[in-house]
Order: sequence, then C-alpha cells, then structure tokens
Amino acid sequence: MKSYKEMTAEELKLEREALSKRIEQFKTMNLKLDMTRGKPCPEQLSLSNNMYVGMEDSDFKSASGDVRNYGIPTGIVELREVFAEWLNVDKDLIYIGNGSSLNLMFDTLMRAVVFGEHDSEKPWGQIEGRKWLCPVPGYDRHFKVTETLGFELIPVPLNENGPDMDMVEELVKDPKVLGMWSVPCYTNPDGFVYSEETCRRLASMKTAAKDFRIYWDNAYSVHHLYADESKQGKLPEMLSLCAEYGNASRVYEFASTSKITHASSGVAAFTANKENFDAAKKILSVQTIGANKISQYAHARFLPNLDAIKAHMMKHADILRPKFELTLDILDKELTGTDAANWNKPLGGYFISVNTFPGTAKKVIAMCNELGVAFTPAGATFPYGKDPQDSNIRIAPSFPSISDIEKAVEVFSVCVKLTAVEKILEA
Amino acid sequence: MKSYKEMTAEELKLEREALSKRIEQFKTMNLKLDMTRGKPCPEQLSLSNNMYVGMEDSDFKSASGDVRNYGIPTGIVELREVFAEWLNVDKDLIYIGNGSSLNLMFDTLMRAVVFGEHDSEKPWGQIEGRKWLCPVPGYDRHFKVTETLGFELIPVPLNENGPDMDMVEELVKDPKVLGMWSVPCYTNPDGFVYSEETCRRLASMKTAAKDFRIYWDNAYSVHHLYADESKQGKLPEMLSLCAEYGNASRVYEFASTSKITHASSGVAAFTANKENFDAAKKILSVQTIGANKISQYAHARFLPNLDAIKAHMMKHADILRPKFELTLDILDKELTGTDAANWNKPLGGYFISVNTFPGTAKKVIAMCNELGVAFTPAGATFPYGKDPQDSNIRIAPSFPSISDIEKAVEVFSVCVKLTAVEKILEA
Repeated sequence: MKSYKEMTAEELKLEREALSKRIEQFKTMNLKLDMTRGKPCPEQLSLSNNMYVGMEDSDFKSASGDVRNYGIPTGIVELREVFAEWLNVDKDLIYIGNGSSLNLMFDTLMRAVVFGEHDSEKPWGQIEGRKWLCPVPGYDRHFKVTETLGFELIPVPLNENGPDMDMVEELVKDPKVLGMWSVPCYTNPDGFVYSEETCRRLASMKTAAKDFRIYWDNAYSVHHLYADESKQGKLPEMLSLCAEYGNASRVYEFASTSKITHASSGVAAFTANKENFDAAKKILSVQTIGANKISQYAHARFLPNLDAIKAHMMKHADILRPKFELTLDILDKELTGTDAANWNKPLGGYFISVNTFPGTAKKVIAMCNELGVAFTPAGATFPYGKDPQDSNIRIAPSFPSISDIEKAVEVFSVCVKLTAVEKILEA
Repeated sequence: MKSYKEMTAEELKLEREALSKRIEQFKTMNLKLDMTRGKPCPEQLSLSNNMYVGMEDSDFKSASGDVRNYGIPTGIVELREVFAEWLNVDKDLIYIGNGSSLNLMFDTLMRAVVFGEHDSEKPWGQIEGRKWLCPVPGYDRHFKVTETLGFELIPVPLNENGPDMDMVEELVKDPKVLGMWSVPCYTNPDGFVYSEETCRRLASMKTAAKDFRIYWDNAYSVHHLYADESKQGKLPEMLSLCAEYGNASRVYEFASTSKITHASSGVAAFTANKENFDAAKKILSVQTIGANKISQYAHARFLPNLDAIKAHMMKHADILRPKFELTLDILDKELTGTDAANWNKPLGGYFISVNTFPGTAKKVIAMCNELGVAFTPAGATFPYGKDPQDSNIRIAPSFPSISDIEKAVEVFSVCVKLTAVEKILEA
C-alpha cells in the first residue's frame, strides 16, 4: 500500500471515500465490542479452576507450620522458594503478599514517603517537588500511585531497548528525582524487553539522590507467547547487577501470579537486598498479620517450581497466541505501508501498542466508540493521561473472542486510516 | 481461703513454705507449655477445612461478576451482604479486604496521616504531638500501629462497662487527641462489653478535634462462649448511633473472619459513613486491585448469612468453652479469697485477663518461664509495653490442650500466690 504521505490530494480523497463506505457498513452491524481490558479470558482462568481441589484431604502443613493459623508473616517457605527460583534470588529475601502486586508497590512507596528509605536523610514526604521517572508509554496504575503520593511525573520515551538511557542519566542528576517505574519484560503496552545494556546502565548510573529507587515490576517475565526460547524475552537478574556496581539498595523487584492463576486472587511477592528487605519487614510486621496462607498453600501445591509455572504459562500462550497473531495480521494487512500507524510485534505480555498518525488517537478512539467498539482512552498510557503526540493506543487482545477481535481490529484499522487521511488533508 | 492481706507474718511464712514445695514439685515435671498464643487450636481450624470443596464444579460467578478475574474492587456483593447483616449496616458501605483486619486499620490510619480525613484541616502527619487514646489493658498490635504512625499513646483505664468515660470526655478536649482504639465486645484481654451508656457517650461526646475518629474493632462480636443469648455480649450499632448525635463521621468499624474460618486466611471488612467510605475508596482504588475474590467466594458459599456464622461460631464455642471454664475453675480454686489476684469471667473473646498483686506480674511471668510455662510478657497489654501497676497478665486458653491448661494454670496460680506472699512479707 502506498504511503498516505506520498499520496496526492486526489488520491487521499478517493481513499477517504472508500474508507467512509466501510465505516457506513460497520454502522449497520450494531457492534458492541470491548478491547479495553487487559485481563485474562475465561478459558485462561479455567486453567486454574482445580487449584484448591483435594486440599481438604491434606494436612494443611507447610514446612513453615500450619497454614490455617496465624504466623509465618513473610510467607510459607515452599512458595518463597518458587518465587526465589523464578526471580533468581535468595528465598529469604522474598516477601509474599496477597494477590495485588500493585498493593505491594503502593505500600513500598508509602513507607518511603512516611518513614524514608534506610539510606534516606528524611522521609520522602518532606521533599517538596519530589519527582519520579515514568517510561512512556507505560502503565496508568503505576503513574497514578506516584501521582497520588505527591510526585511530579517525568515522562521518558521508551524504545525497543528500554527507556532512553541518555535522558535517564541526565535526569537523575536532579536530587529531587527519587525513583523510576520499570516493566522491563514485556513493557506495558509496547511489549519491548529492556536490553542488557539498558539494565547495566540503570544499575550503574550515578544518581544525585543517594536513596534513588527503581521499581522493577516483573509482571510479565514468564508471560511469553512462544515456547521457542529464542523468542522469549530475557533479563539479567537486577538485584545482583545493582550490587555489582555498588548500588545494592537501588531496586525493589515485584512479581505476581495474577495473570498466571487467577487475577487479583493470586499471590504477589517482592524482593530486595537485605537492607531494604529488613526495613520493609519492620513496618510490614506492624501493618499486617500476613498474607492469605491458604492461597499460598494452594499456589505452592499447584505450581511447585519454575518448571510447573513455565508449563502452565504455555497453556496460556496457546490461548493468547492466536489472538495476538490475528490482531497483528489485521493491522499488517490494513495498515502496513500507509504510514498511518506503527506498532511492535510483542513476544509476550498482554498488549499491542499502536502509534497512530500524530494528533489522531483521541479521534480514533471516539470514532471506534461511536461504532460500538470500546478501546482504552487515548492518553491512558501517559502520566496525567496526556499523550503529547496524541498518538498511542493500547489494544488488549486477551479477553475478547477471536471473532470479536477480527471485527474490532478491522474497525480500528479503518478508523486509524480515515483519521490519518483527514489529518493530512486538513494540513 | 483467708486473704493474704489479713494474714500474720507467721501465717504468710507458712504459706510461702507450702507454695515453695509445690514449686519444687513443678520443677521435677520438666514442663514445656505455651499459654502465649491468642490463636485458634487445630480442632477449631478443622471446622473450616471444607470451605473450598466443590468450588471447581461451580461457575465461579458472583452477581458482581466472574470472581476469578479483575474487578469488583469493594468486594463481591454476596459477601458484602453477609457483613452488612452481621454489622447491621448498608451493604454499599462495606469494603472487603484480605484476611488481616489489622491491615485495614493500619491503612485507614496511614491515609489519615498522609492525606487527612475528609473533614481534616490538614493531614494528621503534620500535627506535631498528635495523640491517641488507648483503653488499657488492650491489644498490643493496636498500640503498635499508632506508635509507629507517630502518635503519643494515652492510656485510659477500662472497666466492666468500657473505658472510663469521665476521663475520655476530659481528654478529648485536647485538640491533639485525634482518635481512640476500641474492642467493644469482647475487650481484649478482659472480655468486658461496652455498655450502651458508654457507646452513647462515645457517640455524643464533644471533641476538640472535629475530625476525631474511633476505631471500632469488632473482632469478637460473634465470638460468644454460650448459646444462651442472655449470656452474649450485645452492642448498639455504632455508625447510626454516632449519626444520631450529629457525629456521623466519627467511627470506622472493622471485622474479620480470622477467628471464624482460618486465621489470616479469612476475609476482613470495614464500614463507615458515606463520606469516610468514599474518601477511603478513592485512595484504595489507587493502592490495590482489590482483595482475593476466590477467598471471598469461598467464604460467601461457606457462610452465606449471619445465621450460618452463628451456627458455625457455636462449634467454636463448644471447643473453647471447656478450656475457658477449666482455666476459670483453677483460678477460682487456687486464688479466690487470697486477694493475690482478680480477674473477669468473660462470656466470649479469646482471653482471660488476670490482675496479680501490684508489682508482681513480671516476676510471675519469669517464675513461670523458669518452670517451662510460657505466658505473654507482662506489660504487653499496655502502650509501650509498660504496665504502671506491673499487674496485668493475659492468659490465652484457646490453643493449648485441656491437659496443658490444667498444668499451666496451676503453675501460674501458685506463682501468683508465692510472689504475692513475698511482696507482702517484703513490705
């Protein structure tokens, strides 16, 4: 297909006419489709329906004690071992929380705001104008946490190797920049994987704030679409990498089984070096009796090691892969060559991120909505919901059915093209 | 038995000799008993072993949606209805959390410290010298929460009708007094029940801080030892009582199933008036994806209404009652009339609270420990662990077996008597 940018006004008008006709057809279909939700579909959830089966005939005993009673505040040892193997860290540096890793992140930041980090001069809440780096596009709930806790959000462009490290290294010279979000593999929503060089530069860079922290949200580190290991994102282990460069306290790492077993009924965990971990534990022991150990026990029985997780994740992949491939195929067929949009072909994660023609994303979403196809609001992937390019749109193909995806992505593609054509004609 | 206070020195010395002989006998028994733990015994926990049975054959559907997926942040409606019936409030004012109600309380207070209450002039963290009322003896984990979040802890004596209300009404004239802990039925550890008059005075009193809050921890409100309703503690519904006096925002109420189903793997909840509830929800929606809905679903299936909870609690009572009665019988037999100690006979809850002869509690505990019988450290029931009378000791009869209780409480009673005799002889 010829690039819109190279078309004459006449060609563009013909294209507009053709696209408008397709829009009219869509209108007659009375569609009602939802592509907003980055959540598992029922078939994926059913993979874990049997998690609790037979538990009543067990002795409810972990090597840590009776899982039905009080105690074991950092989590049962069997599950800490699973996360330790998964994240490649010491099991004694694993803290098991309830289903929401977001909750662990919020609480970690809340502690820093109220009490400070172990190496802080004062609680972060006392630092006026505190700032936080936000790779973009990124995860809206991350941004909302730092916004709510009083940070100014500084966007940093993300590319296929991770955040723009030249910019990051410059920004952290500001002592008010206290930390940074990261979803290193696969980035949300692009599905990029931080390169080893990016990880090394993050681990080694000089920061003006000596208590600078990276929130390493490993939400999707086992969420591959392909069994072939050469098609799987890989990361260096970040705790030891930071330690290697003398910045052992720099990183908190988070993970959860929300998109492995059941969303928000999984188990979440964090790890950090001993100083961070002990400081966290001290407050956590006041805050809570501990996380649901029946859930921990069920998880440790259902997914007793990393191999079990990997095998289980391939069942998810078998459900998700066709949905991702179909989405990408339609985008490819409709949009490649037009220069109306670009996108990444992720090897894992939950999203496909499309950059539409600059200045058109809001209009595309509105047009889709009018046709009965809901997409995540434009701008959602940027701090304060403001995409300066008005271009990025997050597609979530996991939840809808194959037939819904087929219609929705076609509608989407046509809207992307039509708005691009109109934008160029306006100029 | 004759009061030690009325004995001659000669009589006391004879008593000391007799008691010392019993201590020597205890030494030969090489005891190893633990009376420290206010937690359910295995038989109680087994009452809920079948909670998850058959769930895999269900459709995992709540009227609120698929419980296996994201969403429903305030909790599934079926479980909110159970708590609403239990606490006698509107289901739309119930927020379901994970297993730890302590976590809900900590987070509620943390929000007040960082963001302020909806009717605060500023975040409580900005109020230097902020204070919190702590009825004593009370729950050490409550006290630790307020201590950690920067409050000065002000003890208020608790009697059989609740806290000393004359003192409370005087103390709340200080604008730095921002709130108060309460375990109204049954108080921890005495097992007292706040009288209706106490509740009315709490609801109606004038406080200098217009954003004063009562944390109404209804941990034991269905934890009766007797089926006979005349032997069950009862409370007025505190939210509407506060509203009746124009103080609708005064109270947060908490409850959980930790001592109903499985400790720390239950579900917790809080309720408050709409202004408090909406302000809390706003931050909670940033903090967390929501509480474990598989656990919520299992609870709603297992305990679908208040009658089911009451029936289940009577099974607990059948296990606990003999332990409480045995403890009280031994205390009675050994100590009544001596004036060496006094105690309440609770109708519910998890503890028996013994006030030993003033200035002897620490010594009693140390003496018991030497004999292989562990009790909660003296002072644990007071702010900062400091009992000014050195008198209160908390006995937890739920976990040990009947035969362990028999030995442990005898040892305890003899130690209480011996230290009292020695104290009087010293004077």
